[in-house]
Amino acid sequence: MTFFEATCTAPVNIAVVKYWGKRDTTLILPTNSSLSVTLSQDQLHSKTTIRASADFEAQGGDRLWLNGIEESIQSNKRLVACLRETRAQRKAMEQADPALPKIHSWAVHICSENNFPTAAGLASSASGYACLVYTLAKLYQLPLNASDLSMVARQGSGSACRSLFGGFVAWEMGTRDDGLDSRAVQIAPETHWPDLQALICVVSDAKKGTSSTEGMQHTVKTSPLLQHRIKEVVPQRMKDMIAAIHAKDFPRFAELTMQDSNQFHAVCLDTYPPIFYMNDISRAIIRIITEYNRTGIKAAYTYDAGPNAVIYAPKENMPEIYALLNHYFPGAVFDDQLGLRNDPRAVAANPLPEGFDPKVSPVFAEGAVRRIMHTKADDGPRTLVGEQDSLLNAEGMPKRLA
Amino acid sequence: MTFFEATCTAPVNIAVVKYWGKRDTTLILPTNSSLSVTLSQDQLHSKTTIRASADFEAQGGDRLWLNGIEESIQSNKRLVACLRETRAQRKAMEQADPALPKIHSWAVHICSENNFPTAAGLASSASGYACLVYTLAKLYQLPLNASDLSMVARQGSGSACRSLFGGFVAWEMGTRDDGLDSRAVQIAPETHWPDLQALICVVSDAKKGTSSTEGMQHTVKTSPLLQHRIKEVVPQRMKDMIAAIHAKDFPRFAELTMQDSNQFHAVCLDTYPPIFYMNDISRAIIRIITEYNRTGIKAAYTYDAGPNAVIYAPKENMPEIYALLNHYFPGAVFDDQLGLRNDPRAVAANPLPEGFDPKVSPVFAEGAVRRIMHTKADDGPRTLVGEQDSLLNAEGMPKRLA
Repeated sequence: MTFFEATCTAPVNIAVVKYWGKRDTTLILPTNSSLSVTLSQDQLHSKTTIRASADFEAQGGDRLWLNGIEESIQSNKRLVACLRETRAQRKAMEQADPALPKIHSWAVHICSENNFPTAAGLASSASGYACLVYTLAKLYQLPLNASDLSMVARQGSGSACRSLFGGFVAWEMGTRDDGLDSRAVQIAPETHWPDLQALICVVSDAKKGTSSTEGMQHTVKTSPLLQHRIKEVVPQRMKDMIAAIHAKDFPRFAELTMQDSNQFHAVCLDTYPPIFYMNDISRAIIRIITEYNRTGIKAAYTYDAGPNAVIYAPKENMPEIYALLNHYFPGAVFDDQLGLRNDPRAVAANPLPEGFDPKVSPVFAEGAVRRIMHTKADDGPRTLVGEQDSLLNAEGMPKRLA
Repeated sequence: MTFFEATCTAPVNIAVVKYWGKRDTTLILPTNSSLSVTLSQDQLHSKTTIRASADFEAQGGDRLWLNGIEESIQSNKRLVACLRETRAQRKAMEQADPALPKIHSWAVHICSENNFPTAAGLASSASGYACLVYTLAKLYQLPLNASDLSMVARQGSGSACRSLFGGFVAWEMGTRDDGLDSRAVQIAPETHWPDLQALICVVSDAKKGTSSTEGMQHTVKTSPLLQHRIKEVVPQRMKDMIAAIHAKDFPRFAELTMQDSNQFHAVCLDTYPPIFYMNDISRAIIRIITEYNRTGIKAAYTYDAGPNAVIYAPKENMPEIYALLNHYFPGAVFDDQLGLRNDPRAVAANPLPEGFDPKVSPVFAEGAVRRIMHTKADDGPRTLVGEQDSLLNAEGMPKRLA
């Protein structure tokens, strides 16, 4: 059995200047530029194995397993687009160099898993499509740089393009109709600001929100305020954010991050009918962080299309912030992979910093915040080379099924 | 004992194009025009008795009782301004006509009550200041029309200026620095659209929100989106709203009302730090009304600077809307002064209209909505002439103290 195979992981990214609105829904071209921080794959990642084999055609052609469940490829136009683009590039390489094996025409088995629950609402489509495209590029040995790959990943899920880099990543919206200038670029690597960390608060929510794909186009169609955001606010905010990152100016970075999160949710509310992603728990976290910042900005909240909070802060503030959250939201499971609770401040008897007004929020019932994860800014996609890393067995079928 | 006295009531108004932001905080000049519906005094009103007596100077001068509790007048600059303005106008009349008694220099006793709890967050400052200024005008027999009076009431509380008229009332923002063109005008009387009714839902809330006086200036200073709302959105929306009212086009009126409420809360969220007035209960009401409107617009929600919903709808839809709210928010006290529950649809065994998706909201625990009040568009301030209507006794002291 002749086959080629690649296994890679790709990270989640959480935007600090938000993407909301497409100018082209097929090519996934955005109405404004955006900027994100890539979070460590040591805590959160998608992992994908793709095998191309001449034998697969007889076994049903291209097949896909997501988190152990087989899914249809053909009904997923965005996945088809990523596969078509990378195969076309492989085919061109094969035509230019007849010595290359003709694997572009072989069927593939794609097996992908997230190491975090999809239901947690943690931008799994970003890491998932970044991983798919990166793994395809490895499989086909495409001579692409990450920015070029980002234009393929973008067609899978817009924000996926930013997960092809580590550190601080801008998605430049571009102006061309064909999307060839709508791509991710690295503003600074993760090594530039190594002490920037994040706490992810997974918030309990009774009500499933509007999907971001559907929601953002409602906003484009109905929110008068979105147009102002796109034209007047984001261009300057991108410049300010890049300058704050280059200067490692945390207070400025934090202020811009919070303002942009607020404004994203404001344009959701200005949508008709309105879209809500934050709930009373999300808002309580904002009030707590606002009070924590009253005497100087030490943390930044940001919310994507769901009620979960991501809190960015310098490493040194994390024990205090964890203690605060643990006080107001008892019973949250804590993924303490970076050993935060070894710091006495994280488990102090008095969890509130000096001068903190305890009345900014009630103490919630157990489980209002279901889980807290501690992670940090980190690198881009990784290639795994060990046989034990493959998600496929010798026959090219998933080692694990759900 | 010689004295002059007047007793009046004034209504609450609920804006459908919201006032948020001052360009002059002393004269209370707004950053945009606004428009409201005056609600019936039969359900909600402020009532004020003011007596001027030559004997009061020896009894401590000007005195004020609000809801049975004596309050300082001098520490309330806005009340002082209303008193100063009306006294100055009285003095000018007295100088022009020496036959008039010189009551402008007499001390006054002001006694004012709301017939609804202030804690309900129902714009009591609007009805309160409208009533104060209207009663002062009656006491001093000022020859002013309601628009002229509105410029005095505006200096007490901005939205009070709109409570000097019944029906549909615009507050024209004006452009002058002295505020002489920032006044209320009646767009249409209550008789123009007699079947427009309202349900007020008093929502339970753990957290006291930011005061509107404080909140709106934070928004002016920090929200980039507010400037767009002021310049680009409200001017056209005012025109559209006036046209919808003149045409009695409920669907259009409702759509504009909901969009403007959404946008007001959007600019609050775009404020830094953000301001929240709606909570999860408020948002559930929006989801329920949005689902109710899915097959045609039959109701409009609007929210002021608090979590309470006001739902405008034609009279014929009210039984259905009440049944819906009563289903999702059991245990709310219902002020059924218009006899809504005499309609079988209001108490139907199946409270959901045909085709209504019950999953838009969970059914909340008892008391999430504390009270529902049914009222309608109605007239402006009323003068009461019976001795039993006075809030002061023979000695000029409150008949009731708290």
